[in-house]
Amino acid sequence: MLDHTHDPKARSFVASANGHPDFPIQNLALGLFERNEDEGPGMGIAIGDMILDLEALLDQRLLEDEVAEAVDAARFLEGWADFLSEGPEIRNALRREVFALLQDGSSHRAEVGAALVPANDCTLYVPMRIGDYTDFYAGIQHATNVGKLMRPDNPLLPNYKYVPIGYHGRASSVVSSGTPVRRPKGQRKPATDPAPSFGPSRNLDYELELGIWIGGGNDLGEPIPIAEADQHIAGYCLLNDWSARDIQGWEYQPLGPFLAKSFCTTISPWIVTPQALAPFRAAQAARPEGDPKPMEYLWDRHDQAHGALDLALEVFLVTPGLREKGLPPHRLSAGHAGALYWTPAQLVAHHACGGCNLRAGDLLGTGTISTEAAPGSLLEITKGGREAIALASGETRRFLEDGDEIVMTARASRPGRASIGFGECRGTITPSA
Amino acid sequence: MLDHTHDPKARSFVASANGHPDFPIQNLALGLFERNEDEGPGMGIAIGDMILDLEALLDQRLLEDEVAEAVDAARFLEGWADFLSEGPEIRNALRREVFALLQDGSSHRAEVGAALVPANDCTLYVPMRIGDYTDFYAGIQHATNVGKLMRPDNPLLPNYKYVPIGYHGRASSVVSSGTPVRRPKGQRKPATDPAPSFGPSRNLDYELELGIWIGGGNDLGEPIPIAEADQHIAGYCLLNDWSARDIQGWEYQPLGPFLAKSFCTTISPWIVTPQALAPFRAAQAARPEGDPKPMEYLWDRHDQAHGALDLALEVFLVTPGLREKGLPPHRLSAGHAGALYWTPAQLVAHHACGGCNLRAGDLLGTGTISTEAAPGSLLEITKGGREAIALASGETRRFLEDGDEIVMTARASRPGRASIGFGECRGTITPSA
Repeated sequence: MLDHTHDPKARSFVASANGHPDFPIQNLALGLFERNEDEGPGMGIAIGDMILDLEALLDQRLLEDEVAEAVDAARFLEGWADFLSEGPEIRNALRREVFALLQDGSSHRAEVGAALVPANDCTLYVPMRIGDYTDFYAGIQHATNVGKLMRPDNPLLPNYKYVPIGYHGRASSVVSSGTPVRRPKGQRKPATDPAPSFGPSRNLDYELELGIWIGGGNDLGEPIPIAEADQHIAGYCLLNDWSARDIQGWEYQPLGPFLAKSFCTTISPWIVTPQALAPFRAAQAARPEGDPKPMEYLWDRHDQAHGALDLALEVFLVTPGLREKGLPPHRLSAGHAGALYWTPAQLVAHHACGGCNLRAGDLLGTGTISTEAAPGSLLEITKGGREAIALASGETRRFLEDGDEIVMTARASRPGRASIGFGECRGTITPSA
Repeated sequence: MLDHTHDPKARSFVASANGHPDFPIQNLALGLFERNEDEGPGMGIAIGDMILDLEALLDQRLLEDEVAEAVDAARFLEGWADFLSEGPEIRNALRREVFALLQDGSSHRAEVGAALVPANDCTLYVPMRIGDYTDFYAGIQHATNVGKLMRPDNPLLPNYKYVPIGYHGRASSVVSSGTPVRRPKGQRKPATDPAPSFGPSRNLDYELELGIWIGGGNDLGEPIPIAEADQHIAGYCLLNDWSARDIQGWEYQPLGPFLAKSFCTTISPWIVTPQALAPFRAAQAARPEGDPKPMEYLWDRHDQAHGALDLALEVFLVTPGLREKGLPPHRLSAGHAGALYWTPAQLVAHHACGGCNLRAGDLLGTGTISTEAAPGSLLEITKGGREAIALASGETRRFLEDGDEIVMTARASRPGRASIGFGECRGTITPSA
């Protein structure tokens, strides 16, 4: 629901926030930051180039009773996971209060200013302890592209348009933007080799995904109705599902991807809330003629009309050669969240339909977001490594090499609206152990 | 390493411990128990029909400095996960101290007696917060049996004897023995139906597995050498990997099992330590002629000679009909941990070989343990549901029905050794939501 916190004319006394590509006062993304290692991480809110220290606001009694109580309880427990599990009302209350405090003409400008920390001086962590991480496969163009490499005539499996396909991922190795990504070793078996060998992955890839943060969970055995599913989502982030294609190809039958994915997953550290993205909801794209209608437990009129996200995503590659020659990053992918075959609410409702309990802090990946023009992984762009990419530096790439950096961005923008960004999701490949 | 705590002649002043099928003084399994809901859960040790309250021992200053400090720190943090992450030395020290306190002729019999609680008065919880749960597929007879149902001529895939096949499971729905198991709803598509339908699973199954608790983890990007892998294991439990076969058959391509498994996993609540099982280690069974030798990162001489477990497992079915007629449980499965194609250390080393970080509290399932005589799941016993089981009650079963209870047990026993048990892993099916 739109209110004064979405007013595109609203300005903050934090100068860098006004016209900021990612964090204007209309965003107010949530994060876990640390200024000095000895202070320990704390809850913060992004505003321009600064971070608003929530606990400092609390100590200065600048938060109203209900919000203050929730923040105070959360700081000693699980941080944002506890706060967000209190539900959408309290999240909205926090947004309205922080908006008022940061606004131009704020009556508490001095005290609030004292609670601001330059983002560049801070470390940003994964914002919540992730209970479980689930990766979906909702990018139908990606599923089609990948399927074509194995089954040219029949790329999509029969279940794809009925089941929001997903699998359990690894929570322990989800890291925050900027964390180096060590090339994994593992078993690889090129079709031409008689037996597998063990060593560093030769086909290291990225995958462009959107991450969905769960705020409120459900009890074991109690499904989440599709009409309520959106209320369980606390926010969104960018997600790079690093993939070792050679390890994946050899290990994944019959139980799915395992070590080819679990060595590392990088996310953008800010939780961009549903309130911030409220002006950028869209109707779910109509299904092509002949596609089955979503089953009843996945179909909701309001979700179909407003459940998709109008969000543009990009991926850039920075190589040692581009860096040396001072050349700009090479744009690999450009996707749009509207390309997903299922809405975030449908992914949540499906996940819980059998009674599996979601918990505050759970992270869901949407699956790789591809368009025909600029698919979301090298596997697709290079046709499984057959067609190398030529870079302005004279380098070529089939897969990622040591020293390569992948940078992902996401932006929501519409005429007459302040644009909202996610901040960067970046990671550089380092050599194997 | 064997010491006086393994002496089969050792007796406890806790009478029920002597000759106890599961928890003699030579076991001393670790658990998280609660006597009254208002007290909150605490760390305890199983002795006969009683539970030794570790925090009560601490308050009575009956633990030596180092152990006392570790228990005292752990009680305010993550309990056993913190204590066990301190490494094997402190675990051994705790075992020796508790052994001395519980022994016949203990010099602190009165105070220790005051720290004992009847197990029947307590609730037992999942003993550690599970960071990540991984399920392997190391039961080669199970993999062969299941493969035969789909590929009679070629049951095992080419990677099976090279890769310890595994996948990520769901941590949030791992529950302690006795928790009711609600039949999941989901999408099912019998081959004869033109399209899938949504409803309660019709092919609900169990899987007999051994659970492996991780004590000490590894840093992201730092593999665990096979020679050190055993040191990262803090203990073992029974694990029932409940499976909805009809949901699984429709959803699992191409990314593996998801909702067919994640609705519930039941474990036995006691952590049976490697020290308790030290007298029951065995050589890994020789691989059949023609099988490849394990790759270097999975091969260790000591692990091959002593890394397997001499542990007998059984599964019993109790139905409403058997209950009414006062008939004994029907034994469905009888397995042996020696039937696993990989040792626990090999599963740990493989999991971390690409740099995936394991953490204290992680749980690994071995995969279903089957023998030709008594396989570890109904899928295998009934040949995919084609051959019904006849019960003494006159009932028949292809898969589990509402009201059916599955009970698993595990026992280590050798001549001249006190036998060690795991306690029960039980769950009863309740109707769908």
